[in-house]
Amino acid sequence: MRQTNLFVTTLREAPAEAETVSHQLLLRAGYIRQLAAGVYTYMPLGRRVLRKIENIVREEMDASGAQELLMPSLQPAELWKESERYDVYGKELMKLQDRHEREFVLGPTHEEVVTTLVRDEISSYRRLPLIVYQIQTKFRDERRPRSGLLRGREFLMKDAYSFDTGWEGLDLAYEQMYNAYGRILDRCSLTYRAVQANAGAIGGKGQNHEFMALSEIGEDTVAVCSICDYAANIEQAEVHSGDAFEEQDFSGIPAPVKFHTPNQKTIQQLEQESQIKPQDIIKTLIYTDGGKNFAVLVRGDHEVNELKVQKYLGCGEIALAEYDSVQAAAGVGSGFVGPAGLSLTILVDAAVAGMAEAVTGAGEKDYHLRGVVPGRDFLLTHVGDFRNAATGDICPVCGEGKLVFHQGIEVGHVFKLGTVYSEKLGATFLDAAGRSQPMVMGCYGIGISRLLSSVAEQNHDDQGLIWPAAIAPYTVHILLMSVKDEGQREVAEALYAQLTAIGIETLLDDRDERAGVKFKDSELIGIPVALVVGKGAAEQKVEYMDRRAGTKELIDISETVARVSVV
Amino acid sequence: MRQTNLFVTTLREAPAEAETVSHQLLLRAGYIRQLAAGVYTYMPLGRRVLRKIENIVREEMDASGAQELLMPSLQPAELWKESERYDVYGKELMKLQDRHEREFVLGPTHEEVVTTLVRDEISSYRRLPLIVYQIQTKFRDERRPRSGLLRGREFLMKDAYSFDTGWEGLDLAYEQMYNAYGRILDRCSLTYRAVQANAGAIGGKGQNHEFMALSEIGEDTVAVCSICDYAANIEQAEVHSGDAFEEQDFSGIPAPVKFHTPNQKTIQQLEQESQIKPQDIIKTLIYTDGGKNFAVLVRGDHEVNELKVQKYLGCGEIALAEYDSVQAAAGVGSGFVGPAGLSLTILVDAAVAGMAEAVTGAGEKDYHLRGVVPGRDFLLTHVGDFRNAATGDICPVCGEGKLVFHQGIEVGHVFKLGTVYSEKLGATFLDAAGRSQPMVMGCYGIGISRLLSSVAEQNHDDQGLIWPAAIAPYTVHILLMSVKDEGQREVAEALYAQLTAIGIETLLDDRDERAGVKFKDSELIGIPVALVVGKGAAEQKVEYMDRRAGTKELIDISETVARVSVV
Repeated sequence: MRQTNLFVTTLREAPAEAETVSHQLLLRAGYIRQLAAGVYTYMPLGRRVLRKIENIVREEMDASGAQELLMPSLQPAELWKESERYDVYGKELMKLQDRHEREFVLGPTHEEVVTTLVRDEISSYRRLPLIVYQIQTKFRDERRPRSGLLRGREFLMKDAYSFDTGWEGLDLAYEQMYNAYGRILDRCSLTYRAVQANAGAIGGKGQNHEFMALSEIGEDTVAVCSICDYAANIEQAEVHSGDAFEEQDFSGIPAPVKFHTPNQKTIQQLEQESQIKPQDIIKTLIYTDGGKNFAVLVRGDHEVNELKVQKYLGCGEIALAEYDSVQAAAGVGSGFVGPAGLSLTILVDAAVAGMAEAVTGAGEKDYHLRGVVPGRDFLLTHVGDFRNAATGDICPVCGEGKLVFHQGIEVGHVFKLGTVYSEKLGATFLDAAGRSQPMVMGCYGIGISRLLSSVAEQNHDDQGLIWPAAIAPYTVHILLMSVKDEGQREVAEALYAQLTAIGIETLLDDRDERAGVKFKDSELIGIPVALVVGKGAAEQKVEYMDRRAGTKELIDISETVARVSVV
Repeated sequence: MRQTNLFVTTLREAPAEAETVSHQLLLRAGYIRQLAAGVYTYMPLGRRVLRKIENIVREEMDASGAQELLMPSLQPAELWKESERYDVYGKELMKLQDRHEREFVLGPTHEEVVTTLVRDEISSYRRLPLIVYQIQTKFRDERRPRSGLLRGREFLMKDAYSFDTGWEGLDLAYEQMYNAYGRILDRCSLTYRAVQANAGAIGGKGQNHEFMALSEIGEDTVAVCSICDYAANIEQAEVHSGDAFEEQDFSGIPAPVKFHTPNQKTIQQLEQESQIKPQDIIKTLIYTDGGKNFAVLVRGDHEVNELKVQKYLGCGEIALAEYDSVQAAAGVGSGFVGPAGLSLTILVDAAVAGMAEAVTGAGEKDYHLRGVVPGRDFLLTHVGDFRNAATGDICPVCGEGKLVFHQGIEVGHVFKLGTVYSEKLGATFLDAAGRSQPMVMGCYGIGISRLLSSVAEQNHDDQGLIWPAAIAPYTVHILLMSVKDEGQREVAEALYAQLTAIGIETLLDDRDERAGVKFKDSELIGIPVALVVGKGAAEQKVEYMDRRAGTKELIDISETVARVSVV
């Protein structure tokens, strides 16, 4: 492609609303343009990158035995009511009525459509397992679309769905997809971690992993082991519980001592005004599960993980108790509640159980206790992992590495749905014994446009984008320094013709612009190799510039094909 | 692909609502499934065909210098109000509101988006010409979706847009696109004609051609020359006007004679009750252009073409005059109006002007005149082509062939928009002299899903589909007759492995089904070549079946690669 023909305009400045680097650079380099909030046009350069990612995804899906189909964006609203997601999705679901006032939603995902499709086509175990996928535009009316393609309202996704006769089959399909996702992200040169995660609005209770592109701008926090490959969403990260607690002899250990802490209701106040370190304090939090109250104890420098508590209790959503409720249960307002003498069920985080002694609320306004001993001053009946992982925690898997935290952008998600949808929508099959069984499902998504942005976010410098060769819009950028120099032009044209003829995607900057403009645009656009045809052309030399390495090297024109063929 | 894994179910009967053969067969052979009226899922077989067509379209677009981009489906409604198409499109335009109650339309086409995009990117003549295209889902809320993919509400289109500094540039872009369309349809083995057509709701006044797949079920009528390549939409087909009219000597020709035709108001009644042939009658029709009345004369066997009349008069829409108006203008009700003595402007179709004498209304209830002579009994001041072409008319281009009529399905449309959109949406550029000029635009569409259906409509027999090799879902269908026969299975598997290894797309029917079922399904699915591995396998023989020719031939397995490589 000749740059004089290419439909691209580079910008010196990105619009002010572009906050993340990828968003700024994709706009400045002319890859995308905004039509409305969260709605973008892919310009020719952007379309090329998007198609390359699509093709990688398609190849890996096909190689893993998934079959491509294409389901509609227009989905009857009844389907969503049947699956009970019509209300759950809320305002993110875009809705419209057709001319006959029949209601439709614009698919943000396709569980309903695919489940009823497979239900209507397959009735025997003989035709399972099955994995289908599609590459399709999705619509989600984000409350606050942002970061360009990272959180858009119209975006491109690959979604796959597996159908099995049982959980063992699902395990296998899940593994195939998990591995395919790894290959896809590797081929796109993404730095990522597959992390254990929680179920969202998508439903189901099964195992699931998020594929997180590591990036400062990510909205998710990922705990990663410094030694092994353990990685988990912070909400999901297990905390290594350490050794078992042995029966202890408390004889000779002094009783707790009350001391005055006027108005010191928070860990921060205790630290500042009474010089007590957070890790020496026990926080006593009174929760309610809607009916009963109970207490959760965590160390002052830790945070309660409500999901873990819910899981331990086997209950639904929990919340901190209201002021009056705390007063009634603990005899004092929050800030001075302590476990000693509390007549509630007490859940003790393992880190608390392991403390020799600690500071707690005294159960009396403006007083705390020093020297409170777990197991003596309160019961250790319910000890467990009730907190979020924290920096420096020991890895729960290898038991050696320490957890470190990263921000991550979710680019993929694999999820064991089980029978949630098949039961709601009646997708059953007859097993070998002729019994009707619900199909066991998994769903697997990759945000293709989000992946594009994530790669951009990870691959750039101050001058612009730095595309990995596999998804770069072009492999080679020929920069013709002076279009008026006959000799240079001949060399550039010959090189362009030669590279194009052997299938190397080449962009020729044949514009009548100053060298500085060409270098600047080339760095901004971020094609892996630039071949500068300038004064050296007379001696059959071109400058070989490696965008990523930032290196320049004068080489003989005869070497170029060999050099760029291995990019 | 092994058929035991393929997600396809063939049906004996198509659902009753499928009226056209392509719709019935695509459903029965498992290529598509309906989700809602006019909204379909492409199953794996259908997706494969669709992708092959997409790729052909993409290759030809790229080869013609068009650049691919991808514009959103969600389009701000304001844009459509600015272009004044929001109301014109009416109920076909699907509309929705986002969570902030901002109104969007789901793009049925992208003139508004692309025009504003190019407006914002390009300001100098130096960056024109430009052709961009996309392959994108479109939405159109058809009043009566029908014929499966032929008239759907969500469908796949390729749309391209050209931008030039002037009309000469547009002519060139138009020609490039016209030629690319020919190559695309040829590669898809479609039987089609490019016909001159009228502008629809799309706007603009320029030249345009529709690419019509010839088919009995087509909703359009196309006039085609029996000798040259002239083809036109019936509304647009010119009628060869024959020789110029010479001054005639009317002396000795008897005056018209009045005769009684009680209640014979129509051509049919005159023919049946008075034995007068339609081609000997002149129909006198009184029209109004909203203000003035005028008469149009056509032969009894011809139909007035109102567009031609409008063009001749340079006026807007015309309509037949109301009864009272006819009475007032002609002194008699319609059925007995004649041109003789009529004090209105009279437009005379050339075929009428060429009649020696004719029967016309007498201007008196229940009477007609015989022996009315054009040029003597009424003026030939306004002679022209005012009728629809009719079977047997001489071709207006070569003057030798005769026009025949076909039904056609519009699969493509190329259109010189001119400056309609660029003026409304402010897409201007500065020319070499620094003057601001509107860009001159063209638009070019191909219905990709409609093309798929049209090819199916043209390529089938009673047993099923017959895909052209270039877009068939697979090239070869291996039919393993008995999965329990070890020898047959080995031969089939070896053949499958061999063909797949050299890139020949092969479907292996490895199902445990009777031979009859396999043959029936194979014919229904319509893969170009079936290789039957049956009893001959023991002697290294397979049966080579050509789906289109309907031939069978026992060949040596060693010949198969050579044979299928040239399909």
